[in-house]
Amino acid sequence: MNDERPLILISNDDGYKARGVNFLAELLAPIADVIVMAPDGGRSGMGCAITSKDPVYYSLVSEREGLTIYKCSGTPVDCIKMALHEVTYRQPDMIIGGINHGDNSGVNVHYSGTMGIVIEGCMKGIPSVGFSLDNHSPEADFEPLRPYILQIVRKVLEQGLPQGTCLNVNFPATPLYEGVKVCRMAQGEWTQEWEERPHPRGGSYFWLVGSFCLRDEHPADADRPNLTEGFVTVTPIQIDMTDYRLMEEIATNWNLG
Amino acid sequence: MNDERPLILISNDDGYKARGVNFLAELLAPIADVIVMAPDGGRSGMGCAITSKDPVYYSLVSEREGLTIYKCSGTPVDCIKMALHEVTYRQPDMIIGGINHGDNSGVNVHYSGTMGIVIEGCMKGIPSVGFSLDNHSPEADFEPLRPYILQIVRKVLEQGLPQGTCLNVNFPATPLYEGVKVCRMAQGEWTQEWEERPHPRGGSYFWLVGSFCLRDEHPADADRPNLTEGFVTVTPIQIDMTDYRLMEEIATNWNLG
Repeated sequence: MNDERPLILISNDDGYKARGVNFLAELLAPIADVIVMAPDGGRSGMGCAITSKDPVYYSLVSEREGLTIYKCSGTPVDCIKMALHEVTYRQPDMIIGGINHGDNSGVNVHYSGTMGIVIEGCMKGIPSVGFSLDNHSPEADFEPLRPYILQIVRKVLEQGLPQGTCLNVNFPATPLYEGVKVCRMAQGEWTQEWEERPHPRGGSYFWLVGSFCLRDEHPADADRPNLTEGFVTVTPIQIDMTDYRLMEEIATNWNLG
Repeated sequence: MNDERPLILISNDDGYKARGVNFLAELLAPIADVIVMAPDGGRSGMGCAITSKDPVYYSLVSEREGLTIYKCSGTPVDCIKMALHEVTYRQPDMIIGGINHGDNSGVNVHYSGTMGIVIEGCMKGIPSVGFSLDNHSPEADFEPLRPYILQIVRKVLEQGLPQGTCLNVNFPATPLYEGVKVCRMAQGEWTQEWEERPHPRGGSYFWLVGSFCLRDEHPADADRPNLTEGFVTVTPIQIDMTDYRLMEEIATNWNLG
């Protein structure tokens, strides 16, 4: 290992075999020592979940100069915790989640395993960024992301990020980008979320489905609508979720005693 | 059902048999129609996780005038989505997570299934509150929480909460409370997170353990230290995680093109 090269830790929520994470690792291996610790299978929608009741395992998948890949039986956040505890030879200079197969814009950050990785990295005091492509196809083309990812990673390696803040970067489904926009987290909610099916042995089971409805008063600078319009969106996300305005209001007017 | 009574939807992450959720349901049944949809077993540390790859089931556990209890095979957030889709006869006036066996103060909100419930409720536009007791003992005494919970629930039913903000309420381990304090989300991180054990058939497995280290520059109004000192802490939590300051900084100085 070369201590003059930056050390980058990568994980994802689609599993270590997914094309997105492997594209990202190969893209960054020329400019950094890259360690991948990714789930041993798909872990979509896990948010910041951690494994509390089961034992967690990890093992080496492959190793070559500058790129080492591990798989882990836990959640995406477990992967980061495990890598930092077990396999990084020093504090990484950066932690990256992705490239996710599917977007993680707007309030979907709360459900996102990719952003769980990034939030975990940020809580550890390490500059952290998530990359997601708004395209679920297993044949999705990651090539157009290349210059944008390299630019953002170089920028973050150079100057870091403020303590307690990370980045959520989303790429449009089709590669003719309109440009890059720095955005807010779009607000909205999911509707029609369950599809009921009769079980062959009686009763019903349900699949989580649904569609995302934007309900945002300022869509001009919200990430989801800009992503749909073809912009690469960069949304700074902070760990501190305190609503300081309501804090004052409650302290002043609620008489909680 | 009486449409003049408020409708309150409750879930938790300790499962429908846990004492905390049943104490809460019995406490509120005299003042509201209460529907519980809780996981069929423990789901601690699930954060905002949703079930994307497995079918989800729910079934009726018990029913009496004003209190109906269901169990669900999904995550805490799944429980809220399922209840709203399947069993609430109208939009609930309030959604409550808890009472959790164990605290959910500070940045642990990100890992908390209890707060996942509350964040989900908030995203649906329903006033939502999480209650947690900083005591993991199965014999923990919930009685001292009674007047505080009733006061906060009545207040929220009366005047609602701002769109996009929910409450995280934590109770000290011992019942001689110093008072109530409106707080910020304490910042910090977990350290020494894994305990390695030899597997009887070779290799190792790991248990997620660790201890939480407060790293907060303003502990005077942060929830975790106040909780430790005996205060009931009320922390307003917002869904929008955007760091608006960094947003401006990146847009102005990063030249992302």
